[in-house]
Amino acid sequence: MTLQRLRLAKNEDKRLRSGHLWIYSNEVDTAATPLRNFAAGEHAIVENQQGKSLGLAYVNPQSLICARLLSSDERTIDVNFFKKRIKSALALREALFDHPCYRLIYGESDLLPGLVVDRFGDHLSVQLNTAGMDAMRDIIIEALVRMLQPQSILLRNDAAVRKLEGLELEVVTAYGDVPSEVELIENGVRFLAPLAEGQKTGWFYDQRPNREWLRHLAPGKRVLDVFSYIGSFGVQAAVFGATDVWCADISESALDMVHKNAELNGVADKLCTVQGDAFTTLKSLKEADERFDIIIVDPPAFIKRKKDQKEGILAYRRINEMAMRLLNHDGFLISGSCSMHMPREELLDLVRASARHIDRHAQILAEGMQGSDHPVHAAIPETRYLKAVLSRISRV
Amino acid sequence: MTLQRLRLAKNEDKRLRSGHLWIYSNEVDTAATPLRNFAAGEHAIVENQQGKSLGLAYVNPQSLICARLLSSDERTIDVNFFKKRIKSALALREALFDHPCYRLIYGESDLLPGLVVDRFGDHLSVQLNTAGMDAMRDIIIEALVRMLQPQSILLRNDAAVRKLEGLELEVVTAYGDVPSEVELIENGVRFLAPLAEGQKTGWFYDQRPNREWLRHLAPGKRVLDVFSYIGSFGVQAAVFGATDVWCADISESALDMVHKNAELNGVADKLCTVQGDAFTTLKSLKEADERFDIIIVDPPAFIKRKKDQKEGILAYRRINEMAMRLLNHDGFLISGSCSMHMPREELLDLVRASARHIDRHAQILAEGMQGSDHPVHAAIPETRYLKAVLSRISRV
Repeated sequence: MTLQRLRLAKNEDKRLRSGHLWIYSNEVDTAATPLRNFAAGEHAIVENQQGKSLGLAYVNPQSLICARLLSSDERTIDVNFFKKRIKSALALREALFDHPCYRLIYGESDLLPGLVVDRFGDHLSVQLNTAGMDAMRDIIIEALVRMLQPQSILLRNDAAVRKLEGLELEVVTAYGDVPSEVELIENGVRFLAPLAEGQKTGWFYDQRPNREWLRHLAPGKRVLDVFSYIGSFGVQAAVFGATDVWCADISESALDMVHKNAELNGVADKLCTVQGDAFTTLKSLKEADERFDIIIVDPPAFIKRKKDQKEGILAYRRINEMAMRLLNHDGFLISGSCSMHMPREELLDLVRASARHIDRHAQILAEGMQGSDHPVHAAIPETRYLKAVLSRISRV
Repeated sequence: MTLQRLRLAKNEDKRLRSGHLWIYSNEVDTAATPLRNFAAGEHAIVENQQGKSLGLAYVNPQSLICARLLSSDERTIDVNFFKKRIKSALALREALFDHPCYRLIYGESDLLPGLVVDRFGDHLSVQLNTAGMDAMRDIIIEALVRMLQPQSILLRNDAAVRKLEGLELEVVTAYGDVPSEVELIENGVRFLAPLAEGQKTGWFYDQRPNREWLRHLAPGKRVLDVFSYIGSFGVQAAVFGATDVWCADISESALDMVHKNAELNGVADKLCTVQGDAFTTLKSLKEADERFDIIIVDPPAFIKRKKDQKEGILAYRRINEMAMRLLNHDGFLISGSCSMHMPREELLDLVRASARHIDRHAQILAEGMQGSDHPVHAAIPETRYLKAVLSRISRV
């Protein structure tokens, strides 16, 4: 079968030549190759204005990102193609981690745009986030089964981004029997994560190196984990030696899992939970005159779109300053942001400004990013999203 | 004794109000308080144009940075002042590290502008980098002795920055008997560092967290450490399980220490050294068709002044691309830069551009900064200088 060609307008091959994988619809020479001639998910050869091939992409005429490169040559996209890509991704994770618990495929960065695979030992949680990947689900599942021999594969195809691709939202079993909870090990600590019912793929591996900060800091400390979800920071703090850990989240089912995870690690007696909105919780804790030695503030993305940036930054500023006011002298604050539109410099500056505002001295001890199982594609800034700042806040 | 007042020109208190500690000479109301009225190192009360006190500073009329704040109030600067500041700095390091081997005082970030103290167990290596700190050397030594009971204190007052302050360069013993070499432990690995004869204070603790990356990556690998100095990256790679480590440096005495440090850790049989200019060495290795699985490129500052930025970035680009060409498939590159004028984004982009240039795919696995014993003062961007990028470089 001969593939259609998708021709770019003049000079619109610049991004691809720098290594990026995306083509925006306004970059296509639609007179030469109208997008309406392509089905959603169809493969095509991308060529520049001079007709030179730039590689093989899948196309989605409905999406603003109308094509993503799968390969810089014109090789056949089959089970072997996926096996090869998975093999390279797997080699990286096996070099990095002792346990088979990690993001195995991080989309564009692993040269599989639109595909996310989180691994929990023998169980895989998969996101097919584009029409192109969705159309290849059968060979993707086959390649994953052949490479990893998993017990189960769940498709968490319920990310909002699928709507932009004209895809339905669904959560379906693709292979084997998917348990309601899976066990994972992170930084030596055991967790149960809810696969089908949890947030995103069930677990956020991306903060792993930043949770590791707690290993040295937590012993003997009183810790507050705001936006705790199922206890990823909080339970690790308890295992690492914190004497007293409070996990706060708005979701009751998440807090039930916090208790379960604390029990799993034998630290249930050191941990309590507070259900409610984070801003309200911090206000109540201040009124009750509670103080902590370490506070983690790792909210969901406050800035979902570029146009929400200003307001979002203010929300980050507000929640971090509220947390800072609850810190004991020489206390530690971990400030996270998973918003791609929250610049690292802004996060650093709000730590400075908040500290200054309440007359404290802020030392930035570490700046974290997403873990190495979420590698950044050097040419795709969109793959670099997670920030975490560890600071010590002191009275002078 | 009443202190003189140093008055700032209108609105020139803005930087200090944001938390910064520096006053530039062109920000002083020299009509009201001429700088020539101050002796180098003299203490003064800094006030804004309205006469409101901003705190106590030391002054140096000869320096572009003509004053640095020691305290936001007007407290007496005596041994107790230093003891208090040292105590807070010490508490941080003791929370972070298992062994007493770290930068104990990192100048401005520990609210002791111009003072650097590196600790090697019972031995201290000190830099007094400003006239203000130099003038207080006696009470600083007294405070360090009282707080730490060290065996020796060496003044490494030979940093070029002292010339800008009108100070002599000197290396002198301030306390006890200074051994020619001291032992330290970093990431669990033992090293001997030359105190008086080595570079800077004798050891670069700042790259500690970025050397830790090698723990998981090194086993079974062939490693090249360019600009190895006394083997900080290379010897750690060997201890962590590399099968074969090459350390390259221009200094013969540094390479002698590499061998000594390899022996100290029982890995001498896995390690060899190459003496010479780094660019020449990489060229020869390419001609000899040598290949490595991990290469570390951590040069001295290629950009010393802002005006050298463009040329410096090109030098970083060139050395990293030369290294990249020596990597095996799926090899790892650690690219360091200690130049404050080398933006993090530029370092990331040169990894991208170099990889692209030789048709490789670059995944950024981690972005490191200076270790937590070199905290960044949240309001002083000048304290944030070290960058390190860990990438995997693959053929597609």
